[in-house]
Amino acid sequence: MHADDLILISVDDHLVEPPNLFENHIPEKYRDRAPFVRTTRDGSDVWMFEGAKIPNIGLNAVAGRPKEEYGIEPTAFDEIRPGCWNIDERIKDMNAGGVLGSMNFPSFPGFSGRLFANVDDKDLALAVVRAYNDWHVDEWCGAYPGRMIPMGIPVLWDAQLAADEVRRLSKKGVHSLTFTENPATLGYPSFHSDYWDPLWKALCDTQTVLSIHLGSSGQLAVTAPDAPIDVMITLQPMNICAAAADLLWSRVIKEFPDIRIALSEGGTGWIPYFIDRLDRTYDMHHLWTGQDFGSKLPSEVFREHFLTCFIADPIGIELRDKIGIDNIAWECDYPHSDSSWPEAPEELARVAADVPDEDLHKIGFENACRWYSFDPFVHRSREQSTVKALRAEAEGHDVATKAYDKGRFTRQVGADLGELAKQATA
Amino acid sequence: MHADDLILISVDDHLVEPPNLFENHIPEKYRDRAPFVRTTRDGSDVWMFEGAKIPNIGLNAVAGRPKEEYGIEPTAFDEIRPGCWNIDERIKDMNAGGVLGSMNFPSFPGFSGRLFANVDDKDLALAVVRAYNDWHVDEWCGAYPGRMIPMGIPVLWDAQLAADEVRRLSKKGVHSLTFTENPATLGYPSFHSDYWDPLWKALCDTQTVLSIHLGSSGQLAVTAPDAPIDVMITLQPMNICAAAADLLWSRVIKEFPDIRIALSEGGTGWIPYFIDRLDRTYDMHHLWTGQDFGSKLPSEVFREHFLTCFIADPIGIELRDKIGIDNIAWECDYPHSDSSWPEAPEELARVAADVPDEDLHKIGFENACRWYSFDPFVHRSREQSTVKALRAEAEGHDVATKAYDKGRFTRQVGADLGELAKQATA
Repeated sequence: MHADDLILISVDDHLVEPPNLFENHIPEKYRDRAPFVRTTRDGSDVWMFEGAKIPNIGLNAVAGRPKEEYGIEPTAFDEIRPGCWNIDERIKDMNAGGVLGSMNFPSFPGFSGRLFANVDDKDLALAVVRAYNDWHVDEWCGAYPGRMIPMGIPVLWDAQLAADEVRRLSKKGVHSLTFTENPATLGYPSFHSDYWDPLWKALCDTQTVLSIHLGSSGQLAVTAPDAPIDVMITLQPMNICAAAADLLWSRVIKEFPDIRIALSEGGTGWIPYFIDRLDRTYDMHHLWTGQDFGSKLPSEVFREHFLTCFIADPIGIELRDKIGIDNIAWECDYPHSDSSWPEAPEELARVAADVPDEDLHKIGFENACRWYSFDPFVHRSREQSTVKALRAEAEGHDVATKAYDKGRFTRQVGADLGELAKQATA
Repeated sequence: MHADDLILISVDDHLVEPPNLFENHIPEKYRDRAPFVRTTRDGSDVWMFEGAKIPNIGLNAVAGRPKEEYGIEPTAFDEIRPGCWNIDERIKDMNAGGVLGSMNFPSFPGFSGRLFANVDDKDLALAVVRAYNDWHVDEWCGAYPGRMIPMGIPVLWDAQLAADEVRRLSKKGVHSLTFTENPATLGYPSFHSDYWDPLWKALCDTQTVLSIHLGSSGQLAVTAPDAPIDVMITLQPMNICAAAADLLWSRVIKEFPDIRIALSEGGTGWIPYFIDRLDRTYDMHHLWTGQDFGSKLPSEVFREHFLTCFIADPIGIELRDKIGIDNIAWECDYPHSDSSWPEAPEELARVAADVPDEDLHKIGFENACRWYSFDPFVHRSREQSTVKALRAEAEGHDVATKAYDKGRFTRQVGADLGELAKQATA
């Protein structure tokens, strides 16, 4: 298929939270205690919350920068592409990139809202989570109906409150919850505990997908304090296989047959080997480990429960039938450095040159729509939804690559990797 | 190819050290301090060394047991198949399994001889390492020329002594050194330090392959204390990709262009995705990370330096050209629970049914011979080396499956997994 004719919904992009996020949504009693942005003396913008200072307003938000500068972290809103934090600009960037729909993971709260979970005042924390979600659904996604797949952040510290929030959000049309790869490494009960059962039940009852983004376990793939950062970049997507194995063999899958899980930014090329390994492990070992999937193989169970996605993955595309053609979605990863925005459609068309239209439509948008109960076509026709049609709407919108103001931004990506590695190898 | 016609050399098997290992090789002054086997009051055999008691004489040495019992650890020599620790019996088992050649990793010292490295008296430790290696080369491999690929265990605590031992062993015909996936996690300088340079140089000078067995980092793939053991079994082989990435991006590859590394028991199905990920990481990020492979791609560098292997890996076989047909070897994994001995040839013939003879010969034995400078055919003809010919020699040898004496052996595989997981998730 020619890139022009693709219809693309990305199941993994990122937003940078704007300073006024909480303004319209935080209850009056917490107005003075909600997270807020402070501009420091050196011109950096930082989020402040309950005494904590979070300098990463949008970690690795480098869309529109030359590759030489991917290692420099933006530290102020005026150095980040406005499409990261302004929905009107984001839609223009999506149009220019030919992207019809997009699901956006959070930035400063962490992928699973860990920042909010860590404060002592849990009433305040709950108000902040709800305000965040209301802003995300009503303002960010609500501004352009049919363009954004809404997603909630979880109440990470209380499974019952988490369930309540999922049910509340589902009434606003939300069918995705961002969550951690591994609650155990964050200090919460693991996927093998029954602690989370109220949450799993709420997800099943509301057809809400548990969207697990790589890097959300609180542990980086760091081999040694002095390892080059390339090691971590290479390994990061493969580590989500730990979450996939953890959940596949857990009681969650067996006791909540309607649960659906997305491995966000996890790539796909490793999946055929992984599910083959699942079946071999089952065959060789279940007689003594006690695993029991009845008449099914683990590979079948995987396909019933897991959505995978890729940016551009030639191996995953070649082996798509071994993964499951209904289990693969496309992602853009805007505005991070792995993204090919605004030329992502061309990249996909190139690596999927031999893929029949039917399969490419499933990967490009149909699977995303079905898994996330998302229907953009009530708002615009399919003809208006192609890469070509969207780009026509973006005519004149500037997508030029721009360098940073060198004197100002010097913080390197992974500046604290050494410290993390020391912990990892201790 | 029919299973009968295969010629098979396994680059990953295991031996269980016999009680008399050190008898002929330890210097007189250390005779009373060498590791020795003690039979405890309950009938278990344990290795003793400098006050340490090692109950795992042969972890997971379950060849010849019914699958229901794979979870029970043998704790005495008389419950382990004699082929694990007796070379005459091993050769009979190899013949019965149709296996021409085999490389054997150590058991009680750990894959990288960590047990010996941990004692305070380093003179004693060095004498023990040398005695172990001399036994391995002269007795274990020497008894049946052309059947065993000799492999040394390293002097893990001193890079110069490690280099000296590699050079000493190379004069005895050794071209393989078992080593850790990650020296940093064992408390030694990482692969990125220049500390190990004398060892890398010795390996290059002597055409000795660095054989890295999965599970040799001292860290298990444990997601949570209460995770089912199936999670760890599934993830174990994928974790060696961390070692592959660590070494690929390290200075070792660039400064020691003759170094060769084997990813033992690492499987192959994940490699195509991995090397594609290497190339994408390089393309997207090298301008800021500073990685420089000159005119080569990381995937090309990988194929120059890494040997991979599998037991039976349909995905790896299908994608063999994306891995590199000269970079894949076969392994049996005798006597561990992942092995299909004595029917491994039938399993390989089945999963490789569509593979041309030329490729199957490379995977079955030619690559192993070339990478490990091993030539069995000076000792027997190719006609005498096929599965069929070897099995004819084994006629009458008993390979029947036998159950454990239930009253006696109750220690479960992974009995201490919870403790390890607590450390991993702390």
